[in-house]
Amino acid sequence: MSTRSTAKRADALRSIEAIVQAAADCLGRNPEASLSEIARAAGVGRVTLYAHFASRAEVVDAAMNSAIDQGDKALASVDLSGDARQALARLVEASWTLVDRARSLLVAAQKELSPARIRELHSRPAARVETLIARGRADGVFRTDLPIPWLVNVMHSVMHSAADEIRSGNLTPDRAADCITATVLAAFTPPGRPVPESGPSS
Amino acid sequence: MSTRSTAKRADALRSIEAIVQAAADCLGRNPEASLSEIARAAGVGRVTLYAHFASRAEVVDAAMNSAIDQGDKALASVDLSGDARQALARLVEASWTLVDRARSLLVAAQKELSPARIRELHSRPAARVETLIARGRADGVFRTDLPIPWLVNVMHSVMHSAADEIRSGNLTPDRAADCITATVLAAFTPPGRPVPESGPSS
Repeated sequence: MSTRSTAKRADALRSIEAIVQAAADCLGRNPEASLSEIARAAGVGRVTLYAHFASRAEVVDAAMNSAIDQGDKALASVDLSGDARQALARLVEASWTLVDRARSLLVAAQKELSPARIRELHSRPAARVETLIARGRADGVFRTDLPIPWLVNVMHSVMHSAADEIRSGNLTPDRAADCITATVLAAFTPPGRPVPESGPSS
Repeated sequence: MSTRSTAKRADALRSIEAIVQAAADCLGRNPEASLSEIARAAGVGRVTLYAHFASRAEVVDAAMNSAIDQGDKALASVDLSGDARQALARLVEASWTLVDRARSLLVAAQKELSPARIRELHSRPAARVETLIARGRADGVFRTDLPIPWLVNVMHSVMHSAADEIRSGNLTPDRAADCITATVLAAFTPPGRPVPESGPSS
C-alpha cells in the first residue's frame, strides 16, 4: 500500500514538472497558448492537468515561478562587487536577456495574476537589486532622495518598457541593454552629480 | 421615413454616449466591471449595448479612447513654454493626476486590448511629450544619445509604475509627482551634465 502510494506520488510529481516546463515553453512562445496545448506538450491528458491545477491562473503562476527561479540561478553568478554603477550595468546586461526571453510569459501572467502576485514572484530578483542599490547609496554613487523600492521599480519598468519597445519594432534587441543601462544609471544619479557617460564599454 | 431614421439615429447616438461614459466610470472604479453593470449604469438594456458593441474589448476601447480624449483636452492648457525641464515638471504634475484616475481603466485595457492598440490610443498625448523632448534636446537640457520614442516610453513607464506603487501601498499619491519628475528629469539629463536638484519647487 505504502509502495503504491509512493509510486503514485512520484508519478504525480513527474506530471506536474512536465506540465510546468511545458507551460513555461508554450506561454514563452505565445501568451495565449491554451491549456490543451500545454497538456499535449507535456505529454499528459487534460484530465491529468486539471487534477493538478485548478485553473489557468494556477498553471501560469507555476510557469512564472519556475522561469523566475531559473533566472534567479543564472543571476546568482553575476559579479556584483566593485563600483556599484558597473555592477548595475552587468546586472542589467544579464537580467535583460532573461526579461527579453520571459516577455511573452509575463504577458500571460499580467492577464491572469494580480500585480501583487507578480511582484511577490519577483521578490528574490528584486532583493538582489535592492542590496546593490543600498550599497551604491552607501558609496555615494546612487541617489538617496528617493525610496529604494521606487528605484527597484524604476529599473524593472525600464527593462519591461524595453521589451515593449522591441515588440513594437522601435528598438532592436542588441541596443536594449545599453539603452536600459544609460537610462537607469542616469535615473539613479544623485542630484547635483553628473550623469555617467554612456556607451557600450561603460 | 427620413425623420424617423433621423430620430432613430439620434437615439442610437445618445445610447452610445451613455454607454461609453458609463463604461469609463464603471471600469475607472473596477477593471472587472461587467457589461451588465455598464448597461445598467448607462440606463440601457443589455440588448441595446450588444447592438452597438460587438464585444467587451470594443466597450473598453471606446471608454479608454474617451478618457484619453478628455485628458488630452485638460493637458492642452498646460504651459509648455520656457525651460523644458520646468515644462516637463508641469506636464508630469498635470498628467500624473490623469494617469492616477485612469489606472483602473488601464488595467481593463491591458486585459482586453493589444499593446499596439493601447499605444495608438495614447498617440496624441505621446505627441505632446515628443515635441517637448525635442525642444529640450535642441536647448541642450535633454540627452540626445537615446531615441525620442525611448524617452517618451520611459516617462510613461515611470508614470505607470507610480500607479502600481500606489496600488501596492509603497507610495502615497501626494509624493507621486515629485518622484516621477525627479526620476524622469535625471533619466533625461545629458551624460556628463549634473542631475537637476529635485524638490517640490523644482
